[in-house]
Amino acid sequence: MHPNFDDIKNAATRINPFIHHTPVLTSSVLNAITQANLFFKCENFQKAGAFKIRGATNAVLSLTERQAEKGVATHSSGNHGAALALAAKRRGIPAYIVMPTNSPEVKKRAVAAYGAEITYCEPGLAGREATVEKVIAKTGATFIHPYNNEWVIAGQGTVGYEFFQEKNSLDILIVPVGGGGLIAGVSLAGRAFSPQTKIIGAEPKGADDAYRSFKAKKLLSIPAPQTFCDGLATSVMGSIPFPIILENVHAIFTASEETIINALQLIWERMKIIVEPSAAVSLAIILENPDFFKDKNVGLILSGGNVDIKAIATRFS
Amino acid sequence: MHPNFDDIKNAATRINPFIHHTPVLTSSVLNAITQANLFFKCENFQKAGAFKIRGATNAVLSLTERQAEKGVATHSSGNHGAALALAAKRRGIPAYIVMPTNSPEVKKRAVAAYGAEITYCEPGLAGREATVEKVIAKTGATFIHPYNNEWVIAGQGTVGYEFFQEKNSLDILIVPVGGGGLIAGVSLAGRAFSPQTKIIGAEPKGADDAYRSFKAKKLLSIPAPQTFCDGLATSVMGSIPFPIILENVHAIFTASEETIINALQLIWERMKIIVEPSAAVSLAIILENPDFFKDKNVGLILSGGNVDIKAIATRFS
Repeated sequence: MHPNFDDIKNAATRINPFIHHTPVLTSSVLNAITQANLFFKCENFQKAGAFKIRGATNAVLSLTERQAEKGVATHSSGNHGAALALAAKRRGIPAYIVMPTNSPEVKKRAVAAYGAEITYCEPGLAGREATVEKVIAKTGATFIHPYNNEWVIAGQGTVGYEFFQEKNSLDILIVPVGGGGLIAGVSLAGRAFSPQTKIIGAEPKGADDAYRSFKAKKLLSIPAPQTFCDGLATSVMGSIPFPIILENVHAIFTASEETIINALQLIWERMKIIVEPSAAVSLAIILENPDFFKDKNVGLILSGGNVDIKAIATRFS
Repeated sequence: MHPNFDDIKNAATRINPFIHHTPVLTSSVLNAITQANLFFKCENFQKAGAFKIRGATNAVLSLTERQAEKGVATHSSGNHGAALALAAKRRGIPAYIVMPTNSPEVKKRAVAAYGAEITYCEPGLAGREATVEKVIAKTGATFIHPYNNEWVIAGQGTVGYEFFQEKNSLDILIVPVGGGGLIAGVSLAGRAFSPQTKIIGAEPKGADDAYRSFKAKKLLSIPAPQTFCDGLATSVMGSIPFPIILENVHAIFTASEETIINALQLIWERMKIIVEPSAAVSLAIILENPDFFKDKNVGLILSGGNVDIKAIATRFS
């Protein structure tokens, strides 16, 4: 069963006491640069620094008592892991997080700070999945996939639900695409709550599995994602979000690494906020396709803000 | 004539169409660290990136037609210069800005981008004043001092006016002190609008002229301010703000450079916002005096966000 709009509304009610209602910011400088009216939903200000706490909290709160006792487990390059760790801590249950060794330090620290048990694995989906299976066999924890999970998709959809409640005049809403959980949930919310809004996916060119899959209308994988957007470096989208995306998303655009870094620097310098590279892809696709967005009311979901500030700043021009 | 509360209310009405009503953010992580309830007024999101646009706009809009024709002039390490340039551009009049050669590049670029005519001078108040006098002799422009000016003080006071309208339960409001324009205006707003709120000044130890003057109850200057808070590196406060501060400010606290850098990193990393070093002094004095602020509702004015991101990030631990 795919999640539907009721699942998103229920998720919103369930998670509201545990998350921030994040602000929507505007920037006259970026409006002038893009010739569009941009509205930025700041999930970088969200609890645990990213939208992922929405899906993780919805999943943790949806477990039965019996499931909850044994805890939750997942694999994650960082944001979902930290989010699941925090959500589990809030319910007072164990969290077992499998992280690739090359995860950003700031994300490793965040997961540890929320009291989760970390198991490191080799980068790549195969290494992650094998390791998490071992952890689950040992602990009996419930696996909460970072995006291929109905509770998670419904939880991520609440970003869109909140956004549409605040801004009901969006012509376009741009959502970064990694595994597809966020855009699947948001596109479901869009169809029910703001059907006139075109939902557009934004993806790094170097990890364009979603772009290719969307075009081919079947799930395709790419061998080795090449992007510094660690949150979007997926080889293949989830099988649960994919049909939802096919049905409700208008298009997926890609942007080069160079444009993504430029977009990131623009957001930091002009908006004075810190977002992670994955969050800048939405602005990057506007910079690469100005005519499509010109004079439109465009929503952008700034997915998170957990970065190694020093490492990012050295890449700025 | 010192400005009074009516001047602040009038300034608010005058400048409202030209400025942002900036958001007040909170951070559960920083509340936990400080054991206080912190409310951050984000003037880093303000037009031209700092609160200075308030005073500059109030000054420019208060000029007679005849004065306005010949433009405005000032000396500034950056934020006031950029603000005056933008305010002048909005009224369509010339702006002549004298900047020390060691001003941050980002601030030089901002002033230039607003179409002002820049004259560079040697760092230090003497060099600035001599140069601006020459510029005024040549152009007939009206001198708008960055802080020793009634219009400017009334304009800066609107930050406090706005803050108290949104949060009427502040026990303490911390304001960074450079030349004294901001804290003078805000303390006037406080006395009228929130008399139970203690106004506290925050100053770098290496530029503690305000701390010394406040204690001695007379204006004292220090020879060579040593602080990386470029906006607060003043040798002596203004003669107009000083008596207002003496009358309305509860205390001035200082903080070391090391604590200021720690506070800056905390704000960037935990709140995901970019503020300039001068804005972090308020949090720094809380970190150095935890007992004074414990369990209190504390407002902090994040004065601005115009920084060289790379240069700051390299100083982070």
